[in-house]
Formats: sequence, structure tokens, C-alpha cells
Amino acid sequence: MQTLTLQTPDDLHVHFRDGAMLAETVRATARVFRRAIAMPNLVPPVKTVEQALAYKQRLLDARPEGSAFEPLMTLYLTDTLDADEIARAAAAGVRAVKLYPAGATTNSDAGVANLDSLYPILEILEAHGIMLLVHGEVTDRGVDIFDREREFIDRHLRAIAERFAELKIVLEHISTKDAAEFVAGAGANVAATITPQHLLLNRNDLLAGGIRPHNYCLPVLKRRSHQEALRAAAVSGSSKFFLGTDSAPHELSTKESACGCAGCYSAPTALELYAQVFDELGALDRLEAFASHYGADFYGLPRNAGTVTLVKEPWTIPERVEIPGVGSIVPLMAGTRLDWKLQSPA
Amino acid sequence: MQTLTLQTPDDLHVHFRDGAMLAETVRATARVFRRAIAMPNLVPPVKTVEQALAYKQRLLDARPEGSAFEPLMTLYLTDTLDADEIARAAAAGVRAVKLYPAGATTNSDAGVANLDSLYPILEILEAHGIMLLVHGEVTDRGVDIFDREREFIDRHLRAIAERFAELKIVLEHISTKDAAEFVAGAGANVAATITPQHLLLNRNDLLAGGIRPHNYCLPVLKRRSHQEALRAAAVSGSSKFFLGTDSAPHELSTKESACGCAGCYSAPTALELYAQVFDELGALDRLEAFASHYGADFYGLPRNAGTVTLVKEPWTIPERVEIPGVGSIVPLMAGTRLDWKLQSPA
Repeated sequence: MQTLTLQTPDDLHVHFRDGAMLAETVRATARVFRRAIAMPNLVPPVKTVEQALAYKQRLLDARPEGSAFEPLMTLYLTDTLDADEIARAAAAGVRAVKLYPAGATTNSDAGVANLDSLYPILEILEAHGIMLLVHGEVTDRGVDIFDREREFIDRHLRAIAERFAELKIVLEHISTKDAAEFVAGAGANVAATITPQHLLLNRNDLLAGGIRPHNYCLPVLKRRSHQEALRAAAVSGSSKFFLGTDSAPHELSTKESACGCAGCYSAPTALELYAQVFDELGALDRLEAFASHYGADFYGLPRNAGTVTLVKEPWTIPERVEIPGVGSIVPLMAGTRLDWKLQSPA
Repeated sequence: MQTLTLQTPDDLHVHFRDGAMLAETVRATARVFRRAIAMPNLVPPVKTVEQALAYKQRLLDARPEGSAFEPLMTLYLTDTLDADEIARAAAAGVRAVKLYPAGATTNSDAGVANLDSLYPILEILEAHGIMLLVHGEVTDRGVDIFDREREFIDRHLRAIAERFAELKIVLEHISTKDAAEFVAGAGANVAATITPQHLLLNRNDLLAGGIRPHNYCLPVLKRRSHQEALRAAAVSGSSKFFLGTDSAPHELSTKESACGCAGCYSAPTALELYAQVFDELGALDRLEAFASHYGADFYGLPRNAGTVTLVKEPWTIPERVEIPGVGSIVPLMAGTRLDWKLQSPA
């Protein structure tokens, strides 16, 4: 039997949500990842160190027994974040702040409307070594949804990355050739995460022959040429591109709706989905660095001890994940056959 | 009170469906339109004159009492349509055949896979004065969903329109600047319908800030610059562009679904929606020709007697249309305020 053993990976971008959802989401991520960057867009958002530490405790409490999984905490960046709170965040081990342009995605209403107002805060973050994680889309109603990432880079991110050369920036869930090229050409302070859906799907999978809300995420899936550029970036061997699923569960009825939520729930099969892509591209030998090295290195974390093993054994992603007290979630690519499967513990 | 009186209009593209749906769909269209071109994509498709005449009778039977509404019949074009059936169709008053590339939209599985095979049939249609109505999209999986109309024109329609100069062709529900330019520049045998959704919406209304299946149709909504080109064509005064709603009801649960159906149900408010667009563009004086003259003229039908009157009186499109025996339908732009309303009969 063909197997693939990797140093234990990290997921550098996860939405765990809160409450009854945690039993499922923490278990699913802890299944294979040793650490994960926990997004702060709860309701209300995680804006203070106190909130972040309380949320961290809830995540720890939701771990399966015996799990060594460690959530890494972030704050929701607003233009009221002050120097004292940033200092406390650094002291408390908060790794990063997340920038959501106001209205960009799920629970981003509290996001930043005027990015220029952030410059003084970015300076303080840079001084404390706290990273900036970015949802890189403009939100102006007049800008076409497929142009919003490129516009964000051109209007804002390029300038921020150049001005704050010591500020580590992760452009999250990149979705375009433009973003891949920007990151590749930017300074060493800029990296990017790539999700499984942006590697496996393009906008035909969202809109051709029916509209498919379970393939709807933001940034929205782009045309195939962008997908190809992201696939090339993921297997390029560049340490600027690493694993971040953006796994984002939504209860079925909020997806199959008159106005469906953005987000794909990939945690239950994340590593297997990436393996599928790397295998298709003949680059399985580069999966370990993408999944287990580059992210940790960029975050300044030690690489994980231990390993996980995938076996080449076709199986089918379940149609539903049932969560007591929440409802049903349709996982990313539900019903699809995958070639790689996590090896069960001996 | 501001009013707008138009010669009675026609809807040159309607999906009435069949069975229990007809009480609603025929009533909604007959409310304001004197005639309508009835699409043949039933299950099974309307492929013979006998089926078309039987369907016509069901449509007539579904009219409200006293209505003079007249459905105009079409056949579903397949490469097995023969000369005898075409002759019978012409004799029976069938106006047109509808070309669906196989798999292009709802109930199009029986459509044409190889367009070259149609040339002998197009010649016979041309000789009998039967028109060709076209869903103009290629269906190759590899072609981006937003490119499919332009590709269809470039690969197929331009050649057909030039070769069969006496064959009247309607490129239905045009969605791109490319299509508007093609039609404007083509011979006198080529015209186009434009739907309310392609005039009122663009793809941001489908995908920005949530995914909206009730705004999903095929050809899919395009970016704003295409919408602007269609708006310009509609009010241009060119007789090549006329009203065809493509009104296409789908029960709510088949829209708000893991794979939602394509189609917007606009019949209950169609003329009011067009009036909104023409009013926004300061072109109300051109609505009558678009809605009541150019379509009839192109089809070689007498213009209708009688008038309909809209009054400027804000109102809100209902959230649901309930159809006994079918379920709920969410009409196009449900919950939206419109400025123009059909005047109730005195």
C-alpha cells in the first residue's frame, strides 16, 4: 500500500466558531493538525486579549481527550486597537491580528472602513512582532466581485507591505494569479495561505449547470487560469505559500438560502484534499513543506514533532456532518471520491 | 398622477411550464401581454406539431376567464427534426424552433450536441419561414461560464446568421456587450431579446455579500460593463432589441438548494421591471417600441390593438408567489420597491 508520511502539519487559517460548534470543529482540525490559527470573527468579534484568552480556553476545552492540539490566537483588528492592548497581546502570546475590510465576509461588519487610519497601529504591531493577517478584498459596491482582490493589492496592500518591511503579513486565501504574483514578488515579510477549494475548484464549479452554494466562499472562486496559477504557486517550492484552509462551517440552511453565507467547511478532509491536488500535479514530495514547514517557519514557530501518515485508498467524502445542537453541515466536496486517506492510529 | 400608456405588449420569450404551474404562469403573463412565445423545454420536450398543439390547448385552457391572451408555439430543435414535420409545423402556425445546445440550461438534455448537423434542417426552416430562437452558449466544460455566450457567437452563430440570410434568428436573453454588438452589426435577419434581470442586475447581485440563487439564470449575469451595454441596447431605439422576459419559475426548494436551478420568475412584474429600467435611463418614451412594436414586427405579427397603462406609484414586489399544488416561488427582485405599477382595470 502506498503511504505518505509528513511531519505533523499546521493549519494557518481556521474558523472554529464557538459554542456547540466547537466539539466538531476542534475535533476535525485536531485530527491531523498540531496547531491552528484561530480566526477572531466571532459574534461579537474577539477584540481584546481577555476575549482571546477566554476563547482559547474554550477551544482547549473542546479538544478530544489526550489531544495535544494548540490553538494560536488572533485579534480582530479595528482602528480603536491601542498600544496598551497590543503590548498585552504580545505578552500573552497573541500571534497576529486579522484585518477584515468592513463587510468583506461573514461577521466582518466590525471591520476597518478606512485603511489609512490603521498606519499608526501597524507601526506598533510591527514593533511588537505581531503579524498582520489580511482578508484582501476591497468592498466598494461598484467594484466587480472578481476584481476585488486585485484592487485591494493595488490600492492598499502593496503600499502597506513596502512601508512596514518588518511587519509580517499573510495575504489569506489567495484566489488570483495577481495575488500569487504579488506575494512571490513582495519582500520577505509577505506570505500567503491557499485553501483547498481555491486549488480544487474554479468558478465553473460554482455556476455552471446550477448554482452551488457549498462551493461559495470569499474571495469567490475565479476562472480556471487563476486556479492554475494558485496550483502552480502551491507546488512551486516557494516558502511564501503555505497551508491555511479557511475552513468555515455554516449550517446547511444558511448556505441553501436566498442569500447564502460564504465559507467552505474543509476541516474534516483538509490534508486529504491538499494531497489530492499535490498528487494530481505530481508534487507529493512538496506537500510536507507546504503543510508542515513554511507556515511554522513564517510564523517563527518551531516545526512540529511527530508525523501523520496518509494512505492511498480511495474513499468518498460524506454528504453531511451532523453536529448536535447545531444541525447539518455539508463539507467541501461532499460526495467526491478522494485518493488519499488519513491512516487510522494503530 | 403620472401615467404611461403603451400599445399592448408581447413577451417574446416565456417558460410557462405545465400542469399545476399553468394557472399561475399563464395568468401572470396574460395580465399584461397579449401574446407570448412559449418555450418548448417541457419534460419531455415539445418536439412535434401534435405536442405543440396539445400544449397550446393547455395554455389556452389556463387563461383567466375572458382573456384574449394568445400563446405562440415553438418546437424544441433536435437533429432528428425532419422536413415533413417542419412543413406540418409551418401549416399549423408554429412560429419558431428553439435551439438549446445540449446541457445549456433547465431541461436541455435533449438539445443539440453537434451544431453542424443542423445545417440541412436550418435550410428547410428558412424555406418555410420558421424562425430560429437560440440559447447562445457553448457548453464545453472547459469554457469559463462567463465566456460561453461570446464563444457561441464566434464559433457558431456568426456563421449560421451569414449562411442563412433569410432565416430569422433571435439570440435570446443576451447577457454581454459582445452579444449586443454582434446583433447590432449582423444582418436584418438577426435580433435579440433582453430580460429584466440582465438589465437590472449584474454578477455582484449574484455573488457579493452572499450567494443569491434567485438571481441565478443562464446565461449567467455578467459584470457591470456588460449590464450597461445591454441597458444601452434596450433604449437605443434599434428595432433589433425587444422584450423577452425568459420568465422561468422554479419552486423555492429547487433554487435554495445544493445545486440550484437556473431561471428567474419575472412574469408577475415584468412590464413594471422594464419600466423601472427605462425610467432610470430617461427613456420611457422608448419603452413602447421595445415592448410592443419591435418584437411583433420581427416575428411578422400585426401589432396589438388596445393598450395597457402603468401608473407611477411606488409599491413592493411580494416575497413569495404561492401556487396551489406546486409550492412557493420567489419572484425576481422580491421585496424590492418599484416605481411603476400596472393600472387596475377601471
